Formats: sequence, C-alpha cells, structure tokens
Amino acid sequence: MNPKRFRRNWLSAGVGVIAIAAAAVVGSASFSSSASAEEMMVERAKILKDIGVYGLFTTFKVRPSYYMLDAAERAMAADEVDALVMAHKDKVLVDAYLTRGFESESDFMLRLNAYEPLNSQAFLTEFAATRLGRNSDVTFSVFGVTKPLNHTTKEKSPDLLKALQETAYSAPDPKYAFMIPIAKDAEWWNMSEADKLKRMEEHTLPTLPFLVNVKRKLYHSTGIDDTDFITYFETADLVAFNDLNIALFSVPEMLNNTRYGRPTVMGAIMSVKDVVMALSK
Amino acid sequence: MNPKRFRRNWLSAGVGVIAIAAAAVVGSASFSSSASAEEMMVERAKILKDIGVYGLFTTFKVRPSYYMLDAAERAMAADEVDALVMAHKDKVLVDAYLTRGFESESDFMLRLNAYEPLNSQAFLTEFAATRLGRNSDVTFSVFGVTKPLNHTTKEKSPDLLKALQETAYSAPDPKYAFMIPIAKDAEWWNMSEADKLKRMEEHTLPTLPFLVNVKRKLYHSTGIDDTDFITYFETADLVAFNDLNIALFSVPEMLNNTRYGRPTVMGAIMSVKDVVMALSK
Amino acid sequence: MNPKRFRRNWLSAGVGVIAIAAAAVVGSASFSSSASAEEMMVERAKILKDIGVYGLFTTFKVRPSYYMLDAAERAMAADEVDALVMAHKDKVLVDAYLTRGFESESDFMLRLNAYEPLNSQAFLTEFAATRLGRNSDVTFSVFGVTKPLNHTTKEKSPDLLKALQETAYSAPDPKYAFMIPIAKDAEWWNMSEADKLKRMEEHTLPTLPFLVNVKRKLYHSTGIDDTDFITYFETADLVAFNDLNIALFSVPEMLNNTRYGRPTVMGAIMSVKDVVMALSK
Amino acid sequence: MNPKRFRRNWLSAGVGVIAIAAAAVVGSASFSSSASAEEMMVERAKILKDIGVYGLFTTFKVRPSYYMLDAAERAMAADEVDALVMAHKDKVLVDAYLTRGFESESDFMLRLNAYEPLNSQAFLTEFAATRLGRNSDVTFSVFGVTKPLNHTTKEKSPDLLKALQETAYSAPDPKYAFMIPIAKDAEWWNMSEADKLKRMEEHTLPTLPFLVNVKRKLYHSTGIDDTDFITYFETADLVAFNDLNIALFSVPEMLNNTRYGRPTVMGAIMSVKDVVMALSK
Amino acid sequence: MNPKRFRRNWLSAGVGVIAIAAAAVVGSASFSSSASAEEMMVERAKILKDIGVYGLFTTFKVRPSYYMLDAAERAMAADEVDALVMAHKDKVLVDAYLTRGFESESDFMLRLNAYEPLNSQAFLTEFAATRLGRNSDVTFSVFGVTKPLNHTTKEKSPDLLKALQETAYSAPDPKYAFMIPIAKDAEWWNMSEADKLKRMEEHTLPTLPFLVNVKRKLYHSTGIDDTDFITYFETADLVAFNDLNIALFSVPEMLNNTRYGRPTVMGAIMSVKDVVMALSK
Repeated sequence: MNPKRFRRNWLSAGVGVIAIAAAAVVGSASFSSSASAEEMMVERAKILKDIGVYGLFTTFKVRPSYYMLDAAERAMAADEVDALVMAHKDKVLVDAYLTRGFESESDFMLRLNAYEPLNSQAFLTEFAATRLGRNSDVTFSVFGVTKPLNHTTKEKSPDLLKALQETAYSAPDPKYAFMIPIAKDAEWWNMSEADKLKRMEEHTLPTLPFLVNVKRKLYHSTGIDDTDFITYFETADLVAFNDLNIALFSVPEMLNNTRYGRPTVMGAIMSVKDVVMALSK
Repeated sequence: MNPKRFRRNWLSAGVGVIAIAAAAVVGSASFSSSASAEEMMVERAKILKDIGVYGLFTTFKVRPSYYMLDAAERAMAADEVDALVMAHKDKVLVDAYLTRGFESESDFMLRLNAYEPLNSQAFLTEFAATRLGRNSDVTFSVFGVTKPLNHTTKEKSPDLLKALQETAYSAPDPKYAFMIPIAKDAEWWNMSEADKLKRMEEHTLPTLPFLVNVKRKLYHSTGIDDTDFITYFETADLVAFNDLNIALFSVPEMLNNTRYGRPTVMGAIMSVKDVVMALSK
Repeated sequence: MNPKRFRRNWLSAGVGVIAIAAAAVVGSASFSSSASAEEMMVERAKILKDIGVYGLFTTFKVRPSYYMLDAAERAMAADEVDALVMAHKDKVLVDAYLTRGFESESDFMLRLNAYEPLNSQAFLTEFAATRLGRNSDVTFSVFGVTKPLNHTTKEKSPDLLKALQETAYSAPDPKYAFMIPIAKDAEWWNMSEADKLKRMEEHTLPTLPFLVNVKRKLYHSTGIDDTDFITYFETADLVAFNDLNIALFSVPEMLNNTRYGRPTVMGAIMSVKDVVMALSK
Repeated sequence: MNPKRFRRNWLSAGVGVIAIAAAAVVGSASFSSSASAEEMMVERAKILKDIGVYGLFTTFKVRPSYYMLDAAERAMAADEVDALVMAHKDKVLVDAYLTRGFESESDFMLRLNAYEPLNSQAFLTEFAATRLGRNSDVTFSVFGVTKPLNHTTKEKSPDLLKALQETAYSAPDPKYAFMIPIAKDAEWWNMSEADKLKRMEEHTLPTLPFLVNVKRKLYHSTGIDDTDFITYFETADLVAFNDLNIALFSVPEMLNNTRYGRPTVMGAIMSVKDVVMALSK
Repeated sequence: MNPKRFRRNWLSAGVGVIAIAAAAVVGSASFSSSASAEEMMVERAKILKDIGVYGLFTTFKVRPSYYMLDAAERAMAADEVDALVMAHKDKVLVDAYLTRGFESESDFMLRLNAYEPLNSQAFLTEFAATRLGRNSDVTFSVFGVTKPLNHTTKEKSPDLLKALQETAYSAPDPKYAFMIPIAKDAEWWNMSEADKLKRMEEHTLPTLPFLVNVKRKLYHSTGIDDTDFITYFETADLVAFNDLNIALFSVPEMLNNTRYGRPTVMGAIMSVKDVVMALSK
C-alpha cells in the first residue's frame, strides 16, 4: 500500500465513500505509518484505530468429527489455537466470538485485523491445520478495509462530527458483538455528494443517543467482496442495540439499502482460548 | 440491561416499534424488576409476561448417526435432556415442539426464554454435548426481545386496547405452535407514527374475533437478527389460524411486509421429554 | 375443530378465501360430521370430498446408505411400509407417488389426508423408523386444509358453478400426479371481493374444456405454511395438463401470483408397495 | 395421449404457445401416429422430429464413493450403462454429455426422449441401480414436451417461416450441447396473440444468420415443470452461439423473460459409453 | 472456430458486445491465427492477448478426506498436479490462486485459457483423478471467451481509446487476483448502440486513474454460461481496487447491472505448485 497514492485518492471528491457514523467510534481513524504494510507490527490499540487496515470476518461450524476425537485430544485444542494466535501476533490481531446457540450456520467467528491480507491468509491456512480447524467448516467469510470518514468531515458537517467525537461509550463492558454486512443500490452510488451527505446526516443524528451504549467499527468492501460495508458492533445492551437499528431503518438512507445483514452474526465476546474450550466439551 | 436507560427509550416517540396485536396476548407485558438480568430467577408465569425477555427459537434436525446408537443409548437421551433443562431452570425457560412430519428442515424446535441471552447460550452449548445434541444439526435460529406495546396504547388507541384486553382465549388447550418471522420494508420504517398507527389499527380490528381461538406472543428482532419480528402462536384450531392469517394478509399493512414466514415452523406442543422420546424410537 | 365456529367463519364474507376451479373437482366438498376430528374414521371416498381435511405432502430422497443394506433387507421394506399404512388406515389416508426420474430433489412423495394433523405426524414419525424411512431424507413438506368454495358459489357465480359441476372427468385413469404450491401477493389479498370474483371467473372459464382430462384438489395454507394454496392434479394427458396451465398463466389473476410451483412435483401414481419396491432394487 | 383432443387444442387460438425459432430446427415437427404412446417404437430420426415427444434432461454429479470402487469395477461401468441403454432403446432415446470441467453442479447430463414419460422413468430407475448410478446424485432435472410451432406459422408469418425452413445447418459436426431453461412473466402470458407474434418475429429475424452454425430444439414445460421452455442447442462454434444469445437478449421479448438459464448446462457431445469411460478413470 | 465467419460477425453492428475498459488491459486483443483451434500451441504471452480464447474459472474446496491421507501422500500432490499442468501446457494455460482464508466456498481457484474448450475439459477431467482432485469438490465454474473491443473503438471513441492505450500498469507486481461475474438487464441489451457507447464512456473515464494500479481482462459469457461477462483483475493495491469499484458503481451503467460478483472470488497469485503445497500441510 502506497501512502502517496492513498492520499491522492482521498482528495478526489468524485469517489463516493460513505461512513456509517452510527455509534461511538471504537477509535478515531489515523494513518501515519510510512513503513510497508508487510513490515508493520500489529499493536491492538493502534490497529483498531488505523485506516488501511484489512478486516476479515470468518465464521466456522464444527463438524461432528470433532467430537469423535477423544476428550484428551480436544482438551489440547485450545492451547494449540492459542499458541498459533501468539505466533502470529505481530502480523495479525485475532478476536474470537462464540456464536453457538445464537446462530444456525456457525459455532464461532474470528475477526482478523492486519495491515496485509496475506498475513491473515497465512494465519487461517495454519489454523486449518489445527485440531479444531481440521474439524470445522468455514461457513461465511467477508473482507473489508478501514478508510477515513468521507461525509461527516470537518469541512462538510462540522457540528455533527463534533457531536460524534464528544460522545464516549460509558456503559459496562460489552458482552456481545454483531457483524452486519450492508450493501447499497445503484441509485445510491449515482447520487450527488450533497444528497449522500444529507442522507448520512439524517442517518447519524438519531443514532447519537446510542453512542453511550454501543461501539461500532466500519470496513469498506465494494468490489473486494460481495457487499459494500461491514459494520461491526459491540454492546452490553441488546435493547439499546435493537432501538439503534430501528432508528437506522427509519431514515430515508435505508430506502437504498439492498442488504442489511444476511447474515447478522451475533457472538459472545470471549478470549480465543475460552471460545475453543466452550466448543471442546 | 439498565432499566433507567430502558425507560428513557420507550418515552422517545421517534423510535418506531410495532406490535402485532393479532390475537389473545399470552400475557400483558410488565417490567418491574430492578435486579440485574443475570440474577433474575426464571418463573414460567412471569417470564412469559415480562418485557425485556430474550426469546431464542432453534430448530434441529436429527442426523442419521443418532439411529446408529443402540436403542439403550437412545432410551437414555430423554432423561439426559430433561435433567439439563432442570439444571438450567432458574436461568432459562425451555419449551419443546415436535416438528417431525410437519417440517422438512427440522425434527424439533426449542424455544428459550431468558433475561440474559448468555444463559440461553450456556444451555444450548451444553445441549450440544448431550446424546441428542451430538447427533443433531441446528437448522434455523432466530432471536428477539419482548417490548411494551407501541402503537395500540392507552394514549393512542384506547378503544382497541380495551377490546384486546377484554377478549380472552377460551378454546380447548392449544395443541399446535407456530413460529413465523416477519420483516418490513424501508417504506414502512419511514412512515409517520400516525400512518403506522392507522395501519396497525386496520390490522388489529379484523383479528379480534380470533382472540378466543389463538394465543400469540411477539418478539422484536430488528438488527439483533435478520428479521424484524418473531411472532409465536398457539392454537387448537388450525382453520381459525388459517382464517386469522388470511385476515392479516388482507389489510394494507401487508403491502409493506417483505417476509412472512420462511420458515413458518409448525410443531406439536409437547413436554421436552416427550419430544425426545418421540424422536428416539 | 369446532363445527360451530367453523360455520360462522364461512359466513363472514370479509375473509378472502379463493378456490382454483381449474378442472374437474375430485369430489364436491361437504362437511357434516359432528364427531371430533380425533375420533373420525377415515374412508377414502369420503375424506377426499370432505372439508376440514388436512393434507400433508412430503417428498423423500433415499440416501445412499439404503443401498448398502443387503438386498434381503430391502426386499422387506415394502411389506414393512405397507403394514404401517394398514395400521394407521383408520386415522390417515396415505397415497404414494414415484418421483424418481422426474425430480432431482426426491425419489418419492407421500400425500397424507387426515381429520387431525397429529395423526399424520404420528404416521410419519413411525415411518421414519422403518428401513426406508431410516435411510431417506425429507426434502420438502407442505401442509394445507380443505375448505368450501369461496368465490364460485351458488350466490355469486351460479352459471359457472353449474358448468363446473356438470363437467365430469371422462378420460382414462390418471397415471401422473402433480403437486404445485401457489402464493399470491399482498395486492391480491387487499382486493375487494368483487374484484377477486371477477379474476376467479376469468380464471375458471378457460379451464372448463380441460375438466374431462384433469382432476384437481385444492388445499388452503395461508399462515399454516409458507404458501397460500396447494394444488393437486391427476391426469393421464400431460399435453392437456400443459395446455391447462398455459390457460391459467394467460389470465390477469396470474399477475398476482408470486409463486407457482417451486417445487412442481411430478410423480407416477402407484400403490405404496409398488413405490417402495421400485426404489428397493 | 389422445390425438383427437390434441388436434382440437392446437386449433383453439386462445391457448398461448410460443416457439423460439432461434436457429436451424433439428427437424420439422410432425405428428401422425395413431398408435398409443406406450406402443410406439423409438427411432432416432423420427422421435427427434415428432411432436408429442417428452424430453427429460437430468444432470448427475458423481459421488466420491465411486472412486473408492476398485478400477476393475469402474471399468465395467461403461458396458453396464451401455447395455441398459440398448435394453431400453425401443422405448427411450438416450443421449449423453460430459459436463465435468464445464459445470460445478454436474459431471454428466442425460437427455431422454420418449413418447411416454413412464418409459423414461423406468430407464432412470434402472440406471440408479447401476454402478455409476448408485454412486451419483441427480442434481437437476427438467421435463418438457414437443409441440407444433405456434406463432411462426404459414398463416401468421409465412415469410419468416419460409426463411427458417430454407436455412440449413451447414457447419462442421457440433461438439457442444447447451440446455437452457426459459420462463416468461405473467405480462407475457397475458399479451394478445398479435403482440406475442410481433415479439416473436422481432426475436426470430436477427437469429436467421446463425442458422448455419447452431442447431436447436424446443420443449414446452409450463405447469409440468418449474419453467416454461427448455431450449436445447448444438454447435461447433461457441462464438457464434454467444453472438446468437446476444441477439436474443437484445430484442423486446427479452424484457418478459424471468429466467434464462439457471442452469445453463454445457456439455461435450459424446456417446454414452465415452461419457462413462471419461468419468471412470 | 472459423476466422472468416468470426470477422463477419464483428462487422455486423447489430450485435451488442460490450467491453469493460476499467483498468490497464493485460494485453491488446489481436486475432491473426489461421490454424484450427485444436492445433494452436499455447504460449502464455500470446494467449493472454488473443481474442477467441476460452477462459474457464473453477473454484475448488478441499474435502476433509484429503487430510486423512498420510502426510507423505499429500507431499506428492504438488508434484502430481505440476506434472499434469506441464503435460497439457501446449493446449491449456493454467493459473492457480490460493483462496483459502479469503473465501468460504473455496480453497483454491484455477483459471484455464485455451483455444479449444475440449482441451480445458480434458485437463480438468485428469485433474479430478489426482490426489488433490479426488479429494476436492468443484464449487463454482464459469466460462467465457475473449472478443475485440466493441464500444471503445478507433471509430466510435478515438480519444478514450488513446487514453486507455497510453496508460500502462506501473505498480509493483500484483499479489491478488479477483474474478467478478457481471450480468446486465434486458433494458441494457435493448438500448441503442449510441446509448450504450455513452454509458461505456461514462464508465471508462473515471477508471483511467486506476490503470497504473490494476490490471484487468474481460471474457464474454452471454448464453454460454449464466452470466454476461467475467471480469478478471490483478492488483497489489486493494484500496485502489476498492476505489476503482466505487467509481464503477457510481456511474449510470451500474443501474443496468443485475449481477456484480456473487461470487467475488479473491485469491493470492501463486504458482500451481505453491498453491497445492499450501493446502497440503
């Protein structure tokens, strides 16, 4: 990734990039590295704020064969996966979620953040060779990249940006995560920037009250996968999250969404080790 | 779940929440607990009336491998599942339905009601380790939360509310349950509250005659799953239930439904033990 | 099922119920029993004419495991299924169709008619424990109920009703059966009764010439399954059946159909025993 | 099939039957038999020209289990299938196509032409019991019947008919076959015959130049399967075939197509024996 | 393929063929061979520029059975596939991509370019008999042919053509490939050539800045498969590729696309041997 070319693109206003400013931003975006993507060290706090970060969400369903391994084998699975995460920790940040019980199509989800997608692929290729990986099917995979805010900027919408920045998440630690892909129709993409800005302001305003209860993060996917955006949320308050979504459904911008979910993946936020242990009983 | 924040949201009229007042409400909603969700004890009569209750519907298909266990093993399955339900009874209310014969995608359905979804997940994770769970696939899962009535309230529609409250289920004990997910289009969500109220009144009126024959319960799912509502019905009279649905299809509100069913899951209402025994022959 | 409530509903004209009067009705509907549904004895000639009868269509695909049983085992399968049908014959009428060769998703179809769906479920639960059932997957299932004619009645459309009643099936014995689910859009259900009657008359008129070649039977499914109607046909003349369908496609009523088929299941009409034997080679 | 009733229907202009006159007709339709369908002997040249012929296209995917048979077993498979084709040759004409490599959902396709569908079913039921059949899954099946030309007739469109009849296939022997199902929307079926004729003339004219390179055959499926037409093509020139399809997409008639393909099955034209041998390595 | 007939068709302007001039063309099209397709020798540099070349994209998912082979067996798989590629190298150009980690439906993708599709089929039929092929499922397959530019020609749009030709890919070697199928609606195909040209110019102009970062190649599929175009891209800069796609979504031509992706397949560009080795751990 070439930072020079990168900057040039952001300045060309003709390219329509939207940001769903729905809730407390997990971290404000910043992009200051001059190192090549391959060399950049992954640090949790930083990579979750950076732009130019590749997010890969993968859901897995454990096959019945896993439970034909004897219990001692399964007991080793958690340490095996944990060691793999450690071995890749400078290249990929791995988060895990237990989806068993909430989802029919998966038992767990991994979120990988990396500066270089080949690094995420390397991790998943090795994960496929672990006890758990050998006995799981990948059931969904979606890929996106973080980018700077496009509509709600200092120039275009200064008051709204300020409101967004001044509201911090202040609820108990999130227990649940949601991964929701979104796609927009061709009418949306053909709108003028002014119309899109208006829609995004209408979209953002009613979501401000939820910033204290819901964290969110946005990845852009147009063309690099079969959706336009991946929205990721964390919350401890599912009623607030339901209300937030109702607010998002009740503005004109929703008229141009051709996809919202499908799947909506809900998972319990847990350590990688705890997820594997929960599945290994 | 924070009751304070909860109340605030209900008072903000801008958030569109609908209630499908189609038939005799299983219980009027009430929310008075100040205990944290994790600590609240589950009591059948109360949890089925409370708001802020999380409903999780899961359908299962038994794999052929189950019938390769010897009959003695299968004979133990019912007690094993029953014991699990008992062990979790303070945290989760579990209802079971035999869908074999009525559905191609499932053999049984579980409905879990809990104040805290992690508790439902804990039950299902342990269920997956039982003889039956090990040999079944989850084929559908949908998740929602109970909320107070939004449109047919004392302020907005007092006469209709009174009519709803005065009609009680008076038919023989229900034999059949139906789980029907519903989703609405973006036009619906962008309607004014007055328009939505009018549609809901048109929707509710023709359903009043069916209140004596059909019970129903509503869960809200927007954003927390890939549908807007889960409607749950119990009846002993399937022709009345068919007529009720025809009435619901024949009002303008139906024009804004993008999903009604898919799946419509029909099950025989039975004890957990009887369901497992029926599948273990 | 309570006959009193039943009659009341039929008299309330507001409930839209349609009848697809496409061809020679297998039998005119009549409802005169005062016995409870559970107690009513099944007689072929009568149950195929009665209203308030529950029809359950289920398709099955034989798994490869069936052919790993030795031939002697398979040779016993037909008698085993036949005995089961006999054991339930007072409660359920079972018809069988060989779909292998005509369908990719199934090898055979069962049609169950019963006054009480729990009886159909009981049969299918026991069928699942037979040699064939153990080695087959249910691939489609759809459920409906017979009701009296709604539009083409003596009051509303006397001439058409007379024409329908005067035309009898006079072709050779049917060799083929078709099961075709149909669903209508919300515009249809919101039409006035007069408009629906007009559409149904336009629909019925061009089908009269086919009454001599095609038998049909209609089940109503709105809300009790994911379709509005199940149409069932028998014929010995597939070109006539194709022409009949073209006639049905070429009237305005078709503009409001959102589903016609999906699946269209075609089967050879055979005895239960012959179907099982054909699959057991 | 009763020839008398058959003729009557063709004369009734109200029944909309279309013919896709896209390329050199494999043979002009004729119907002169008075024998019953069951008794009629199948002759390749004749049955491919007759009307009232039932076409059944079935695709198969070989299961991994086939390759666990030892090579000697597999080596016998081709002769076994070939013998079966021979045994049924008076009742069913069987053509085979190798789709492996071109299709993800299948490895081979069979086309069966018969005067009586029960004969095709009998063949496929016995095929299912062969070494290859036992180890293959049917992945798609579609069924139709040949009928006389409806729009481009001597009365309605004499010049176009003449042009069609005067252009003969003159390219090298076809190497590839395509099976493409087509369905039309309700607006199409509700058009006047004059409008449909106009559309079909617009459709046919730009296809005349391709008659020398592409052969085609049409089966009618409305109501007897989940599509309206099955178009079958043979060609040695895939660029011409692509151009022909672009021409068919670029006329108004295409606006009323709701399905074109799904699947488009492409196969190499080979003898039954060669197909089985190619899959048995 | 007959070059004479080929040329004639290109000159007939009535046939609508479009070219997506989105990025640096991998090679300008030329067609000068007079040899028959079967005899033509495949040379990488030439076949990637020629018109009349058949592209076949196939994705594969490795089955769990592969990992039950012992490691020594798997270690031989890469050489086995490599030898097969070599054996066919005069007939088929095979490129491989590692999709594991990026896609749920596949682990690797092959792209085959050949002058004669039977040659591609022959390769894939033999590949199916290798250790890896025996233990993999084909999960997607799409087929197209290269053709000359249709809209952006010297006659119709000389300036744009010049701009396209003058911009060369100048970024680091591509690491990622994308295969994206595209289909257009009937309105598009019924547009006048002038309207289509205008749309394609609007489409091409905003893509010029990306020519330095993204390579692309186009195959035509109308009628020969269930899509209209296969677009193939290579890039080292995924943000540029995302921006390019946003530009393509934001022009009126997008309003006529009914498919864009489904699937969008992303793979790491690797040698055939490296792909097999990565999957064989």
